[in-house]
Amino acid sequence: MKKIAVVGYGVIGKRVANAINLQDDMKLSGVCDIISDWRIQNAVRKNYNIYAATQDAVDKMKSEGISVEGDLIELLKMSDLVIDCTPKKIAAQNVAIYKEKNIKFILQGGEKHETTGHSFSAESNYESAININATRVVSCNTTSILRTLTALKRANFLESARGTLLRRATDPWESHLGGIMNTMVPEKDIPSHQGPDAKSVDPELDVVTAAVKIPETLSHMHYWNVKLKKKVSKDEVLDAFKTSTRIKMIRYDQGLVSNNTIKEMFLDMGRPWGDMYEVALWEDMLKVQGDELFYAYVVDNQAIVIPETIDAIRALTGLEKNAQDSILKTNRTLGVLQN
Amino acid sequence: MKKIAVVGYGVIGKRVANAINLQDDMKLSGVCDIISDWRIQNAVRKNYNIYAATQDAVDKMKSEGISVEGDLIELLKMSDLVIDCTPKKIAAQNVAIYKEKNIKFILQGGEKHETTGHSFSAESNYESAININATRVVSCNTTSILRTLTALKRANFLESARGTLLRRATDPWESHLGGIMNTMVPEKDIPSHQGPDAKSVDPELDVVTAAVKIPETLSHMHYWNVKLKKKVSKDEVLDAFKTSTRIKMIRYDQGLVSNNTIKEMFLDMGRPWGDMYEVALWEDMLKVQGDELFYAYVVDNQAIVIPETIDAIRALTGLEKNAQDSILKTNRTLGVLQN
Repeated sequence: MKKIAVVGYGVIGKRVANAINLQDDMKLSGVCDIISDWRIQNAVRKNYNIYAATQDAVDKMKSEGISVEGDLIELLKMSDLVIDCTPKKIAAQNVAIYKEKNIKFILQGGEKHETTGHSFSAESNYESAININATRVVSCNTTSILRTLTALKRANFLESARGTLLRRATDPWESHLGGIMNTMVPEKDIPSHQGPDAKSVDPELDVVTAAVKIPETLSHMHYWNVKLKKKVSKDEVLDAFKTSTRIKMIRYDQGLVSNNTIKEMFLDMGRPWGDMYEVALWEDMLKVQGDELFYAYVVDNQAIVIPETIDAIRALTGLEKNAQDSILKTNRTLGVLQN
Repeated sequence: MKKIAVVGYGVIGKRVANAINLQDDMKLSGVCDIISDWRIQNAVRKNYNIYAATQDAVDKMKSEGISVEGDLIELLKMSDLVIDCTPKKIAAQNVAIYKEKNIKFILQGGEKHETTGHSFSAESNYESAININATRVVSCNTTSILRTLTALKRANFLESARGTLLRRATDPWESHLGGIMNTMVPEKDIPSHQGPDAKSVDPELDVVTAAVKIPETLSHMHYWNVKLKKKVSKDEVLDAFKTSTRIKMIRYDQGLVSNNTIKEMFLDMGRPWGDMYEVALWEDMLKVQGDELFYAYVVDNQAIVIPETIDAIRALTGLEKNAQDSILKTNRTLGVLQN
């Protein structure tokens, strides 16, 4: 039973903590943050061991009546591995502490590949992460790219892939951070960072992305144009995608016509926060034309990396040496939909 | 001096009427509609001759105190050519009347190519429209596709083009029609209709489009991935685009970072309704990689077809036999920005 610390109890951290609690081979040693408002109250309700990042934060939390176990250093002492889910750039600062305390650590996709020297996506490179000291679970968009392109690559169909990424403006609970309304805001650089980021996991991929921010908060949407190595049928492409256990084929003609209908379906299913761990790929929109493939899918930016993070824990701690065994165990515990 | 009737005084019709009034070789014979609310009051303010489509509409307008010249048939008698800007499908019904009255007519892009047998985009096929009886000015998205791809084709750079079209949800003045919020709604079919529609003007184009509706009302945005016939430099691509007088190169690093900043610039310039007749293409986002070209641009769906419609009038009436002469005259009168 490995003891796992979650540092940063925000959008990703609270989901990772929740997912760890669903596993039988690891336990949550505690969560650590600096906030003392309504957000940490969710950890209180769940009876997590709560730690504060700094002594100041310990004092602030105590003044708010929160029972605090100690500071970050004390949490690390109680843990075999730490998942850092703090906002972009802060994790990079925490890394010095993790290294000094000689504890294994997992960062999220907002950090640079160089910070850990290893980037992780379960279906692509689980084995290379076994027993190493640190990895970075790639971002939501990059995770979806790797799942889908790796499935095409396994079938030996993939020549090159060009994607347009329509990014949600901000997270649902946020009011302003990155929010936009009644406009679209492209990222200046082509390629956008997600294509090169996918190569940090699989350098062989020929992938170029362009990204644009959209005034909605639910999830991302990707449009892809893939050059195939050979002419294959639509059914063969669907079969290739189905070799991934984390791509859920959906049907437009079943009424799943938009980000919000997909979100509602996952809320209907009782998923925590309505989370969608799967890439939701439209089967009936997908088109093969000659040696080209066109398709679109939706990515839940808050949830897609959660199963990946659980797998990364198993790889780094050596809990499970077989990628597929870890993936299927994670899928089972989280209720990932199978095709 | 050719006398031009505008039937349908909505988003496109009011702009066409305004543009006709800026020309010295044609005059507006009148505008015709069925509405008698605030929208037609703009025609009253401009002292246009106002006609009503039906006798009922004549009576209704008169009851609202609007001075009405007569019905549609009477307007056609006073005109050499009619521009039908009525909503989708209604124009197709009006065509029977135009044919019976033996008057030349121009439809807008919502109608099918088969309705006229000719589809028009000034820089692509002006000559083929000279002195013919009817044409259809292709839609806003298709117009932008033709301008840009025709420019690449002229330079012999274009092999094939694949585009993702991010469509505005509804027009700025509408409250509900097609409106969506906090989501994205893809069109089910790939290719979406715009790619095939561009081939109605230029059958040689190898173009595939996919389209998705975005919760904003200002304009469309397109992302393109083009296969080039040969390796060329970014400067050569920019030079090719600049052979179109209706593509305006814009710079992200000049603060034009989104649909709304672009809109504000055209309002600053005093364009009527802040209209942008040009395709606004990001010069500093454009990327050449090997034999591939990536770029994005913005399309003002309310305005881009206005210069095309003026040119179509000149072609059908034989006012001008030379495409470039008509285009430059239209550009000058409308104040189209030159690179």
